[in-house]
Amino acid sequence: MPVALHRVEVAEITRVLDGVADPLERCRAFSALTRINTLYMVMRAGSGHLGSSFSAADLVSHLFLHEMRAPLAEDGDLYFSSKGHDAPGLYAALIGLGALPEEKLHRLRRLGGLPGHPDVHTPHMPFNTGSLGMGVSKAKGVVLADRLAGRSRRIYVVTGDGELQEGQNYEALAGAVRRGMHELTVVVDHNKIQSDTWVEDVNGLGDLEARFAGFGWGVVRCDGHDQQALEAAFRKRWESFPELPAVIVADTVKGGGCAAFAATSMPAAFTDDGTGTPWRYLFHSGAPAPEHYRAAHAQLVAAAEELLARNGLGPLALVAEDPAPERNPGAEKLFEAYGRELTALAARDERILALDADLVLDTGLIPFAQAHPDRFVEFGIAEQDMVSAAGGLASQGLLPFVNSFACFLHSRPYEQIYNNATEGRRIVYTGALAGLLPAAPGHSHQAVRDVAAFSALPGLTVLQPANCAGTRQAVRHCAATDESFYLRLESVEVPARVAALPVAELRTGHGRVVREGGRTVLVGAGPTVLDQLLRAAELLADRGAAPTVVELPWLNRVDADWLAALAAGADHLIVVENHYVRGGQGDAVARTLAELNLPHPPAFRGIGLTEVPRCGTPEEVLRVHGLHFEALAGAVLAQTRGTATAGPLAVAARDRRAEERAEEHHREQTEQHPQQNGAR
Amino acid sequence: MPVALHRVEVAEITRVLDGVADPLERCRAFSALTRINTLYMVMRAGSGHLGSSFSAADLVSHLFLHEMRAPLAEDGDLYFSSKGHDAPGLYAALIGLGALPEEKLHRLRRLGGLPGHPDVHTPHMPFNTGSLGMGVSKAKGVVLADRLAGRSRRIYVVTGDGELQEGQNYEALAGAVRRGMHELTVVVDHNKIQSDTWVEDVNGLGDLEARFAGFGWGVVRCDGHDQQALEAAFRKRWESFPELPAVIVADTVKGGGCAAFAATSMPAAFTDDGTGTPWRYLFHSGAPAPEHYRAAHAQLVAAAEELLARNGLGPLALVAEDPAPERNPGAEKLFEAYGRELTALAARDERILALDADLVLDTGLIPFAQAHPDRFVEFGIAEQDMVSAAGGLASQGLLPFVNSFACFLHSRPYEQIYNNATEGRRIVYTGALAGLLPAAPGHSHQAVRDVAAFSALPGLTVLQPANCAGTRQAVRHCAATDESFYLRLESVEVPARVAALPVAELRTGHGRVVREGGRTVLVGAGPTVLDQLLRAAELLADRGAAPTVVELPWLNRVDADWLAALAAGADHLIVVENHYVRGGQGDAVARTLAELNLPHPPAFRGIGLTEVPRCGTPEEVLRVHGLHFEALAGAVLAQTRGTATAGPLAVAARDRRAEERAEEHHREQTEQHPQQNGAR
Repeated sequence: MPVALHRVEVAEITRVLDGVADPLERCRAFSALTRINTLYMVMRAGSGHLGSSFSAADLVSHLFLHEMRAPLAEDGDLYFSSKGHDAPGLYAALIGLGALPEEKLHRLRRLGGLPGHPDVHTPHMPFNTGSLGMGVSKAKGVVLADRLAGRSRRIYVVTGDGELQEGQNYEALAGAVRRGMHELTVVVDHNKIQSDTWVEDVNGLGDLEARFAGFGWGVVRCDGHDQQALEAAFRKRWESFPELPAVIVADTVKGGGCAAFAATSMPAAFTDDGTGTPWRYLFHSGAPAPEHYRAAHAQLVAAAEELLARNGLGPLALVAEDPAPERNPGAEKLFEAYGRELTALAARDERILALDADLVLDTGLIPFAQAHPDRFVEFGIAEQDMVSAAGGLASQGLLPFVNSFACFLHSRPYEQIYNNATEGRRIVYTGALAGLLPAAPGHSHQAVRDVAAFSALPGLTVLQPANCAGTRQAVRHCAATDESFYLRLESVEVPARVAALPVAELRTGHGRVVREGGRTVLVGAGPTVLDQLLRAAELLADRGAAPTVVELPWLNRVDADWLAALAAGADHLIVVENHYVRGGQGDAVARTLAELNLPHPPAFRGIGLTEVPRCGTPEEVLRVHGLHFEALAGAVLAQTRGTATAGPLAVAARDRRAEERAEEHHREQTEQHPQQNGAR
Repeated sequence: MPVALHRVEVAEITRVLDGVADPLERCRAFSALTRINTLYMVMRAGSGHLGSSFSAADLVSHLFLHEMRAPLAEDGDLYFSSKGHDAPGLYAALIGLGALPEEKLHRLRRLGGLPGHPDVHTPHMPFNTGSLGMGVSKAKGVVLADRLAGRSRRIYVVTGDGELQEGQNYEALAGAVRRGMHELTVVVDHNKIQSDTWVEDVNGLGDLEARFAGFGWGVVRCDGHDQQALEAAFRKRWESFPELPAVIVADTVKGGGCAAFAATSMPAAFTDDGTGTPWRYLFHSGAPAPEHYRAAHAQLVAAAEELLARNGLGPLALVAEDPAPERNPGAEKLFEAYGRELTALAARDERILALDADLVLDTGLIPFAQAHPDRFVEFGIAEQDMVSAAGGLASQGLLPFVNSFACFLHSRPYEQIYNNATEGRRIVYTGALAGLLPAAPGHSHQAVRDVAAFSALPGLTVLQPANCAGTRQAVRHCAATDESFYLRLESVEVPARVAALPVAELRTGHGRVVREGGRTVLVGAGPTVLDQLLRAAELLADRGAAPTVVELPWLNRVDADWLAALAAGADHLIVVENHYVRGGQGDAVARTLAELNLPHPPAFRGIGLTEVPRCGTPEEVLRVHGLHFEALAGAVLAQTRGTATAGPLAVAARDRRAEERAEEHHREQTEQHPQQNGAR
């Protein structure tokens, strides 16, 4: 049953702030109210980082209402979150202060709304974050710029625990001391949990104060939920280390502020995800279940009411909103099929190890960790370390499967991956969450350059399965074939059309027809693109222009003979990819086609992303990037019936009649599905 | 005048080792003799890392002769250098122990010889190093593998000071403690110099012992040139920290072991490079001048003689070798033209900053640092930090030029570069030492994937000038044009043919004809490829088949109209690139050509690297990779007179007659130039 939601209006927040005289008590009141709205935003969005938002809420209140000088002014003190996982809480605070429009409360993780991780297109977000460990370096750049400009503001950066496993932090720390960057204060939201489990169980930070002191920074420690302790800590920071950059290690509780979400106090019923896995913190990034929402909301309201009462204010006014959309449990995802198959394979093949970088839930590796604990290695958020260690393992004849989100795996340890390749090591890199979707977390988590990065590595094959059966087959292929692989896995629920595709033989560089049709041939890989292509083909078939749809799961290998045979039956060859237009499958097919030097080659066109991926629902984002099946159908019509002189990177359809037809069709569709249409 | 060289034969080293009873005295004798051979190897090669080899020589002797258990046996204790800059010294030691063939003494940095940085194809080199900071992680992988296999050897990793600025080290440290990796000992060759200047002046390490202790490691410190101190330090390491990974901070002197090269004692005449720059350590990677060689060699021999005498051995036998090849001062290099132009531009444009990662000499930035000290920021070997700080600077309206070697710049901070791109920041990334040449340092320093990496970034243009005038023009273009750039600079001496090319207007995606010819069109960029193309064209012109040669300095931008006009006059379009065949200019041209959908497109072929770059002289390496002008001429003949069905990535010519002609031609040539012909 859908759960009714409640929020606090900005006017009510203003009433409370105006009615509380004591500055620290105002901070407490502000945290209490913004937590209610943070929870509302995440429930409305269906996902979002609650735990970090709550652990940082009192810090944020203290910084914006008490510590910082003119934090909302152009040249005032500057705050940003390096981890970016506390975005909903920060948004709620900025909305509460009138610095962001109130209606954005309803638009978390939506196109044109508030992205899952901070983005510079949102006011008061100086940097794009969500990819960890860059914040201290960026703040140093601002300090250098301020010094050149003669500005004297202070910079405050909040970082997380898990984030401190990233090596970049330690590159940044040393230089800040050498340049005496006293303008810079780092606050560690030290909640002791990374993602959904204890830091200590992943890659413990040891003595965090000694660690920072070892790099020469001033160090202060305090209770990050206690406003008096925070005030004393900042005072000590400025008094004790006036010439140094300093860190405040703020002890917090993930989900702090209400018992239901607080990691240290949550009841057993709140830690059981029903899968029989060990203790997990369930409120890292997903929206709570209805019963968890109701419990937490009641606690938050009770805490706020008590605060209002002791300050002599009237009862809290809440606004009721529409119920949260219901969520389905969803089909099996590719990474789940991957994890199970790898676990089964490892039972028969002792060379196989699984390496993880703090994403065990999202890379499907819990079964592996349970079945083969001695061959499961958790590195924490330390991708460079993980990849080079994989090289060490492979040097001893073992076969490591290296796992992370695709967005981080191809880029954070890119040189380490190449170094392994130069040694000829056999390693399988598996990137989950590949591609544009889900688009709710934002571009830091949308991997759309990974194929380009992996394709340019000698001796490495990039393979993208479309459904669970194909994934199981791909895992077996990677384990049995004597080369290195990048296994690209999307983390969407596999659409029914694609789930139903039977498994075909895997032959390097060969594709297969998944829908028979005419001499217009659409080529793609992966569940999202294949689903859109099949739907576009249905649409075009209705208009008597049924194209042939081909799955080509090899993203950097195209067999010349196979392509020649395909080209012989094609007037138009259109490659669509869930990736930037450069460096991916489109380039690989175009290059092979050009080198075939056919007397009458088919007209070629490649379609992919041309800009930074947007945040939103799948429908919103496919439309805005021109990858929605309706836009694709229009592009096919334009290509096959109109001129074919569009520039290499242009997605725009040139045939005006075809465009009109597509638009007409789209109008019909959107009457049934009234989402924003941003298709271009 | 060429300088006469001397070395010590392995038989002589054996005689000395056999004649010295005291184990530590044997270590001293071994260091004394291997330093003589290290110097010989670097002089013979014309380049190589002397300073690090000398500072680590006593450590290496101690480890191999005293500390390690069966270091040359299959399952014995394992040693490797993480920095890899001490390779000549390690090679000399292994040759002295009979673990590498003696004739390799003459083959440092040559094809089939000993690579400039360690490579796994050389015996006793477990890993490819030279790209810094990966060693501890790799060692952890070996420890994990050993534990799975039930092996109990110890792993010793030597790291440098500058290397400790790389963040990966700190990712690695934490996990080693958590897993109680007592098998692992890291030795810091703490010579206090990185590249050619003091670490303290670049990005000081602060209290190194506190830093390691802050991560929970056991820490011991000792004099790294004192065999007794080393013995005591290792004893303490095992006694005090039997359950922990431990670090030995070994205080050493860069160039230690002879006064001429020792950083702390070298005379003023040995620190003046004649350019008026501040104090520099001149023996980091280049071969010494003849007078420096003679002084150092005399000191090394005197020290060895004294050691032999006090152990009752006869005088040292030296073998005379041919003189070292003379080296010319060389023409201006692109990075020098770049540095001067940027310095001049910055005088007129206050937004411009230059950021450097410990390569100020090799990125041409000394003039900038001297002219604009407040806008020159040295980050040390911390590319991630540098790039994110550039994002911070750009966020404040400044225009940072971010500098490093191309090999590190595109890969180490790849995600940080993307993050800046997602913010729409305007930044110029300048990669020196791009491409295959010089090939002496080996593949860690040969950037041949950088174009692929940068091409897939939205809003970033990749530009590669061919000569100094073109470089100055490119710098001005980057500063004046409102987008981001990757400026790709080769660090070769610009060949005369290419240096003579006049500057042409820069229009994005447009190339220009640099040699008129027929309907076979050769396309390329940069000094190396253009020189080889022009020479191939001369060769082909002699045979009546003069091709047209086109410079296309845009590596990820191809103007469709420009290409259509070019294609109209071409029967064959052949793109040659100083880069892997995937992801570079060949793909960009092929893609654009395919999307033009011409009725009669020219036959296309792309030629580039298909495997990991080899180490050697320029001639050796161009030949082995098929990029030498003779091989290119043969490929052109094969393409234009034979069939055109070669696979997309194949360089092999398919027309047997053309092959025979090319081979015949090559035989004629190689009688004049008897280098190894590895063209494929």
